[in-house]
Amino acid sequence: MSETFVGIDVGGTNIKIGLFDAELKLVSKTSVTTDADMGPEVVIDKMAQTVKDLLAEAGISLEDTVAVGIGTPGPARYTEGIIIKSTNMPKFKNVAICKMLNDRLGLPIVFDNDANVACWGEYVVGAGKGVKDMVFFTLGTGIGGGVVSSGELVHGCDENAAELGHMIIYPNGRSCNCGQKGCVEAYASADSTARRATEALEGGAESSLRKVLDEKGKITSKDVFEHVAADDELAKEIADGTAEALAITCINMLHTTEPQRIVFTGGMIAAGDLLLNRIRHFFDSQVWTIKKEEVEICFATLGEDAGIIGAGALARHRYGQE
Amino acid sequence: MSETFVGIDVGGTNIKIGLFDAELKLVSKTSVTTDADMGPEVVIDKMAQTVKDLLAEAGISLEDTVAVGIGTPGPARYTEGIIIKSTNMPKFKNVAICKMLNDRLGLPIVFDNDANVACWGEYVVGAGKGVKDMVFFTLGTGIGGGVVSSGELVHGCDENAAELGHMIIYPNGRSCNCGQKGCVEAYASADSTARRATEALEGGAESSLRKVLDEKGKITSKDVFEHVAADDELAKEIADGTAEALAITCINMLHTTEPQRIVFTGGMIAAGDLLLNRIRHFFDSQVWTIKKEEVEICFATLGEDAGIIGAGALARHRYGQE
Repeated sequence: MSETFVGIDVGGTNIKIGLFDAELKLVSKTSVTTDADMGPEVVIDKMAQTVKDLLAEAGISLEDTVAVGIGTPGPARYTEGIIIKSTNMPKFKNVAICKMLNDRLGLPIVFDNDANVACWGEYVVGAGKGVKDMVFFTLGTGIGGGVVSSGELVHGCDENAAELGHMIIYPNGRSCNCGQKGCVEAYASADSTARRATEALEGGAESSLRKVLDEKGKITSKDVFEHVAADDELAKEIADGTAEALAITCINMLHTTEPQRIVFTGGMIAAGDLLLNRIRHFFDSQVWTIKKEEVEICFATLGEDAGIIGAGALARHRYGQE
Repeated sequence: MSETFVGIDVGGTNIKIGLFDAELKLVSKTSVTTDADMGPEVVIDKMAQTVKDLLAEAGISLEDTVAVGIGTPGPARYTEGIIIKSTNMPKFKNVAICKMLNDRLGLPIVFDNDANVACWGEYVVGAGKGVKDMVFFTLGTGIGGGVVSSGELVHGCDENAAELGHMIIYPNGRSCNCGQKGCVEAYASADSTARRATEALEGGAESSLRKVLDEKGKITSKDVFEHVAADDELAKEIADGTAEALAITCINMLHTTEPQRIVFTGGMIAAGDLLLNRIRHFFDSQVWTIKKEEVEICFATLGEDAGIIGAGALARHRYGQE
């Protein structure tokens, strides 16, 4: 094994670690609990030990390991290698994660935010493969983003670029947690989709979703799309609202960095064509007509492994021989 | 003179040409009529001859001239060096401008669209100097744009990136010439600003602008801002609409490529602080609050010469020793 890269995906609950060869083929992977309440020293000790164990099990020496990529949620100073703070890991404040990991492993560390890392994974070996310009959206509690322009991630002047969920598409519209009004995230994240359905029911709308709300006490975006499949009018209206907001954001990205491919990920893509065809419909009906646009709008293909693959791919991009 | 670069700014009426030294200092410049109705052969012959004359007058040999930069309006295939068509130069269809100019001058040619070229000029020696990430808006008949990310112009997958005037900010809003609805261009270009004022008067609004419309038969954005200065309520409302649309677009660019500086140019910037302070006001009041943003919003500084300077600077960027 001549060149191995390590990819680490740090979440509030689990830390996933993968080993990759020079072609980014997954050699082996594991997952350990984060135990964030133990504090950064303990967590990073465990992280480093798990990397060593995984390498040992695979029969790979540290000498054959080129670099480590790691992704965490922001805010952080990625170039400096510092986690500023973390919603899911309250004890992580101004943690020099790159230095601490390098001290323990003696390997170069590449650090970026979790959305950028997943974006890079999809770009290199997933749904973005073969293009040079890609835009990436994660549809979860919020909406995260990533932008690849001419083959490189866009980081911006303060490493906070591609916060695509906070593009304002309905000025003076729904309030967003960020303090703005009318962000796409306030309409089209999985949570906002469920919330808009709940609000409509609370406002008295007729829908087969009412039974779900009464029985479970809440509605998820999964419920919404299940009832779209069953042809419920309210569910379809809510899904249209989600898709239209995403389509407008796609149009705006087309006119900004002009991606060849736009990739969506997150739990809500389980809705499949019920979501994807709606986004394409609103995109096609609202995009300019002075030029035929052929941007491909599609779903991510790497699933849960996008984080470790992207982290490994970033390590290879910076330190490997691509 | 060891290294000279040529910058050419092609407009429908005039062709401006400048010579620049290795530090991008203007050595000399000239302007000739485009005479676009004579067709591409004649126009490009004259362009090349004017470059030769200008070099000769400055005592610079072709051997000391490194490269030529040229900017034209789109649509074009810039990498291939072909003007596809031109609104202002109807006889220019599929013109291989780079090859034709290279045949006549024997120099490498760098070609980009006029907004990108002016953006690059401001970036290198104008209002964008000293930053790595910049966004640029031209406020004229329409709204053009340019994006510099990590020190490079963003071109996109089909060389149509940064059409920032066509970001949709008011879905299902005013119709834009591009076929979309609610583009920022339909609200905040110089023409759209004048048009919104005219429509308001036609709708019966009270304003000191009515006298202008009655006397001149039309209103310009200059009239609007003159009446803002005179404290006319309608004029202030129209100016607010322009500024708010631009501010929302700035917020969206902040969340996309995260520029450190956003630069506006075009005739409308003559309005000075009456425009700039309004944009800053709406930006500050509508941008997110989870992080203090320090993006600088300012006006261009190169004026009419931005095109030739940017073209010369692009030539230096590609072929010079920066």
